[in-house]
Amino acid sequence: MPHASRLNAVRNSMTQQGLHAFIVPHDDEHLGEYIPPCAERLDWISGFNGSAGAAVVLADKAAVFVDGRYTVQVRHQCNPALFEYHHLISEPYLDWLLAELAPGSRVGFDPRLHSHHWHQQAQTRLAAHDITLVPVTDNLIDLHWHDRPEPASHPALLLSQEYSGQHSEAKRSRIADTLAAGQIDAQLLTQAEPINWLLNIRGRDIDCLPVVLSFALLHQNGAVQLFADTTKFEDLDLAGHCGQDVTLAPVSELEAALKTLGKQGARVQLDPHTANAWSALVLSRAGAELVPADDPSMLPKACKNPVEVNGSRAAHLRDGAAVSRFLAWLDHRLQQPNPEQEDEGTLADRLAAFRRQNPEFVEPSFNTISALGPNAAMCHYHHDNGTPRALGQDAIYLVDSGGQYLDGTTDITRTVAVGTPTDEMRKLFTLVLRGHIDLACARFPAGTGGLQLDALARMPLWQQGYNFDHGTGHGVGHYLSVHEGPQRISPKGSTVPLTTGMIVSNEPGYYREDGFGIRCENLQVVQPADTGGDIPVFELETLTLVPFDTRLLDVNWLEAKHVQWLNHYHKTVWERISPQLAGDDLAWLEQATRPL
Amino acid sequence: MPHASRLNAVRNSMTQQGLHAFIVPHDDEHLGEYIPPCAERLDWISGFNGSAGAAVVLADKAAVFVDGRYTVQVRHQCNPALFEYHHLISEPYLDWLLAELAPGSRVGFDPRLHSHHWHQQAQTRLAAHDITLVPVTDNLIDLHWHDRPEPASHPALLLSQEYSGQHSEAKRSRIADTLAAGQIDAQLLTQAEPINWLLNIRGRDIDCLPVVLSFALLHQNGAVQLFADTTKFEDLDLAGHCGQDVTLAPVSELEAALKTLGKQGARVQLDPHTANAWSALVLSRAGAELVPADDPSMLPKACKNPVEVNGSRAAHLRDGAAVSRFLAWLDHRLQQPNPEQEDEGTLADRLAAFRRQNPEFVEPSFNTISALGPNAAMCHYHHDNGTPRALGQDAIYLVDSGGQYLDGTTDITRTVAVGTPTDEMRKLFTLVLRGHIDLACARFPAGTGGLQLDALARMPLWQQGYNFDHGTGHGVGHYLSVHEGPQRISPKGSTVPLTTGMIVSNEPGYYREDGFGIRCENLQVVQPADTGGDIPVFELETLTLVPFDTRLLDVNWLEAKHVQWLNHYHKTVWERISPQLAGDDLAWLEQATRPL
Repeated sequence: MPHASRLNAVRNSMTQQGLHAFIVPHDDEHLGEYIPPCAERLDWISGFNGSAGAAVVLADKAAVFVDGRYTVQVRHQCNPALFEYHHLISEPYLDWLLAELAPGSRVGFDPRLHSHHWHQQAQTRLAAHDITLVPVTDNLIDLHWHDRPEPASHPALLLSQEYSGQHSEAKRSRIADTLAAGQIDAQLLTQAEPINWLLNIRGRDIDCLPVVLSFALLHQNGAVQLFADTTKFEDLDLAGHCGQDVTLAPVSELEAALKTLGKQGARVQLDPHTANAWSALVLSRAGAELVPADDPSMLPKACKNPVEVNGSRAAHLRDGAAVSRFLAWLDHRLQQPNPEQEDEGTLADRLAAFRRQNPEFVEPSFNTISALGPNAAMCHYHHDNGTPRALGQDAIYLVDSGGQYLDGTTDITRTVAVGTPTDEMRKLFTLVLRGHIDLACARFPAGTGGLQLDALARMPLWQQGYNFDHGTGHGVGHYLSVHEGPQRISPKGSTVPLTTGMIVSNEPGYYREDGFGIRCENLQVVQPADTGGDIPVFELETLTLVPFDTRLLDVNWLEAKHVQWLNHYHKTVWERISPQLAGDDLAWLEQATRPL
Repeated sequence: MPHASRLNAVRNSMTQQGLHAFIVPHDDEHLGEYIPPCAERLDWISGFNGSAGAAVVLADKAAVFVDGRYTVQVRHQCNPALFEYHHLISEPYLDWLLAELAPGSRVGFDPRLHSHHWHQQAQTRLAAHDITLVPVTDNLIDLHWHDRPEPASHPALLLSQEYSGQHSEAKRSRIADTLAAGQIDAQLLTQAEPINWLLNIRGRDIDCLPVVLSFALLHQNGAVQLFADTTKFEDLDLAGHCGQDVTLAPVSELEAALKTLGKQGARVQLDPHTANAWSALVLSRAGAELVPADDPSMLPKACKNPVEVNGSRAAHLRDGAAVSRFLAWLDHRLQQPNPEQEDEGTLADRLAAFRRQNPEFVEPSFNTISALGPNAAMCHYHHDNGTPRALGQDAIYLVDSGGQYLDGTTDITRTVAVGTPTDEMRKLFTLVLRGHIDLACARFPAGTGGLQLDALARMPLWQQGYNFDHGTGHGVGHYLSVHEGPQRISPKGSTVPLTTGMIVSNEPGYYREDGFGIRCENLQVVQPADTGGDIPVFELETLTLVPFDTRLLDVNWLEAKHVQWLNHYHKTVWERISPQLAGDDLAWLEQATRPL
């Protein structure tokens, strides 16, 4: 069905239901970062398949709203005869609705696909202009999406304590204690990551994110009602794995469970930014008292236990060998005939193949960014959205990739010389790496948030009048999402204190538009440091084990301590990775880790 | 009158007015950092003369609330038979009132001495326990304080544009434009500093803070009604200085002016944290609409214009010579017989005498901290609160002092060897100075707040497991308060971006309880930096010009860049200060600024 017919079908349903507008967000009912193909409603209606955005359909026009990453892509993918384009942040769709609609209008939305917080804000805002937000029972897209993909049906995995390091019972009782302290009867969990962490389960419902999509209610006594596709747990002893107080029911029974809580007049805690409006509506209409608060599982999940940290170390050993093999192969390939037969796509495939050689490798932890020359200046570049660029034209190649292993999640960026870098490129690479090292060397007392450390990674660039327009570091899960909170190292970053077991990326960069892109990324885990001083302090232990490309360095821009750090890091990489390599790969590693 | 009689007198008034409690805060009606002697009500009732705190008087008991700085002092100054002692922050007096009073109680307070914000919060809190906050018309202390000092009557000073750099008319119209944009009819100004800045006036109403205490209304058209002791402006042409739309009236007429605004139904903006509850009550009862917002003069005042910056540079040239002479004298004195005849008091006096040699010197900008040995570990030590410690017993002397000059305000801390420092002291001094240098060398783009830079000054200490328990830097006024906002460099610091013309201190330290104290403080002004990079960045130009004591250094704890910075700084000090010195002082400066 062409998009014009899809729009017409949705408009017919709007007319039937007396709606003047219908909102189609990118999100699914879990409001997480990733969605499965069966939730790509925005793509179905508009053709836009980016990772964030929304469409709004009116009776006589429609618009797509995307952020700065997607302003080019949306023009390629959406028909301008059908859709206006607007900026998701600077021209929000509520503003557009207010400008387009007359008082008395009714705006349809699917309350499962919007947060409770959004609903409250939007309702107040529109009501001030006499416009009503109308929750629809059946999503108007779903009514017409006849070839909609089936949801994933991969079986769930019960993650053994050898990997998780802590029994679900211990995790649940710890959080349940905080509920009891706050006189909360139950916690509604709606995001996949905290539920999968809490129950030590994993799945394959979404590419790159190894989770079972599900909802859960955690009760004050530690009991959990899990709502998920029960077929995924056939032949699995979930209660034996988690404890008898963990029960499984189909997602269709969530509504009844919420209503039961409501009838009991329960105090139910939920995160208004991640719980959907539908669950909040069901609960409050049934008589529950809603208690808005941050999801209490986020912080314990972020602080990896020693088993998880050891697992991450082991995953990085394997991942370091795979990425090193790839870099050795790339150097070798460049010296052979016709390097232009390789492009960003074949390089990414080759890297994936090296990772797949590992039996413990499950899948990539995100879509590899494999970017040559000017493409690397686009932080969210993906070679599939155009013609992959071939080797041979550029001086620098940037590759940002990661893997999901049963014992940990990796994320690494290396910037590699694939031609002759200019002096300016070498200066900028050195400043970026220097910032990486300055942050890697940080120690800090309890209570220090990522916001306070961000400037360390930027200062070498700032000194010379440069900067980069993304955060310095994000949290990383344990065989879970490669992006997790609440910790973050960023100028707009979080004041949540960094503490033992948190894994964070350290990834300063530099991007010259239409020129080149540089990024140096390792993962690091927060650990107590050993000093003879007055107070305990933390330090960052580097997990990632792959050489940085010293051919891109201009050591005039380093101080002695940076050279020392780099030599020590390369010595460690050699010691840990060389036992896994042989032949040409081993020879490559030896020269790549040679001291400066 | 002894304190017991004073308490009785106040309790009699409480009975007459049907009050079960009366609150005596340290603040005066301007709610600023400093108060004049005639406002020392807390001292009158309790004997406690610290710079912050409160007393609460009940029918049968009373309590004094002070913060961590004053827990020792309060025990020296207040009679425990009359007053309990509590911690102002961890045991707030509202909690104490709630524990002590029965429902139905009436708590008297002087609404001129509490902020509008406090009043709203306290009222709600007490009302929940059926306790009423009762604003008194006449302060119960004032009714009985018969030997109360007269308010200062020094004449005001009209600060010429040669010093201020901008006519009051320009300042007023700039802020008035923001009022117009926000559809605000008038801004109530209640703090001395913004009013004195706005009208380019100064005074001598408070020691160390060169202001005329006053209130003002800034109207949307830029006109100002100033309410102050009119005798201070006799023989002065205020309207000629400021513009004909600046009118002067006695403070007693403020009430009528507020009521007039109320009758007009005006929208009046005020800062709820600095405007007193009395003015808010008068305005709202008269019919005005209160608009709570940050004081819009704070940011323009903080960003010094080029004339003010030049003035500050000139003030620091003079101040640097005075402090250098003092340090030269101190070194000389230590080599002469009987150094123990000098103590913290005589040293502070000597330093003051050197500053007073300057005809442009007006007064100290705060009470000098002159602290030997263990006394320097108390950040708010003052030698007058006990027996000043004599020279000769300690290795280290810390002196934190500053001056008010017509063209600028100074604030400098030097830590000096006055005995034989241990290796540990030298290590710690070096780490502190290294942190000072790392912050001094910072460059940063627009939008960077002090919170993001604070860690630079702490990192050398953090690396070794040390820290200091105060902010790294505060704003400094131009011939105004030595402490000003909104910028601040601190772990709990402000995200207000640092920008051109802001003056900030850079003062990391280290304090070993019962041992010694170290602090290295210069003032710096934010200026655009010159780089060949992509984006404009700021840097910190150091204003203070006095050598650091290199005898306390252990250069093993420095990197090359710190030695370079220090040598360059000392070269600058030599070049700028040496022309003002002669004889022994000049010889001292030469060796004190010798390159490492």
